[in-house]
Amino acid sequence: MNNFKKVTVTDETRAELHDLLNLTGAEISVNTLPAGASVPFIHSHKKNEEIYAIIEGEGAAVIDSEKVSLNKGDWIRISPSAKRQFFASADKVLKYICIQVKENSLEDYTVNDAVI
Amino acid sequence: MNNFKKVTVTDETRAELHDLLNLTGAEISVNTLPAGASVPFIHSHKKNEEIYAIIEGEGAAVIDSEKVSLNKGDWIRISPSAKRQFFASADKVLKYICIQVKENSLEDYTVNDAVI
Repeated sequence: MNNFKKVTVTDETRAELHDLLNLTGAEISVNTLPAGASVPFIHSHKKNEEIYAIIEGEGAAVIDSEKVSLNKGDWIRISPSAKRQFFASADKVLKYICIQVKENSLEDYTVNDAVI
Repeated sequence: MNNFKKVTVTDETRAELHDLLNLTGAEISVNTLPAGASVPFIHSHKKNEEIYAIIEGEGAAVIDSEKVSLNKGDWIRISPSAKRQFFASADKVLKYICIQVKENSLEDYTVNDAVI
């Protein structure tokens, strides 16, 4: 098990995968906001780009004062400096994945990084 | 829309998000293997750690000749050099997210990179 590690994420409120999977290039969290709830603070980042994927439910993000509706299948990239806050809708849960990576850290990828 | 970008991923076979979202720290793909199908090649990477999330269905990965069963909710980190191939089960689709990041590229994260 040196070259890979697996975990199963059940319906917890929040799972942080960096330490569970020994990640070295990202932190990834799996999050659930109950209906009517929000992340209780606005935040930005120093170095990290964030990518959010909506995996269930409905809600919204406010990013630099602009409201963005969120539904299952939506993916958003947010620049480090943008001020962001996430909200579940009044009557639906919002489940989402958040991926943190260092901005501009990716070099080659897919066919240019692969060995087949 | 300078500080963020949103796309909606529907049930396509494969969506690659790097160019759609102007990602700079990751490539992310959303993939569907039909029942009985597999990725038609074994591959490894030069620099990139890969993280896979199973979002629907059932299947398996073979990683350095070790078979790993896959079900919804499973997350796997795979080191660049590991040889990997993915398979849907005979009678179920396998839908998964693949996140490519440069190994060892993450510095601080979460509270140590956030500004609140």
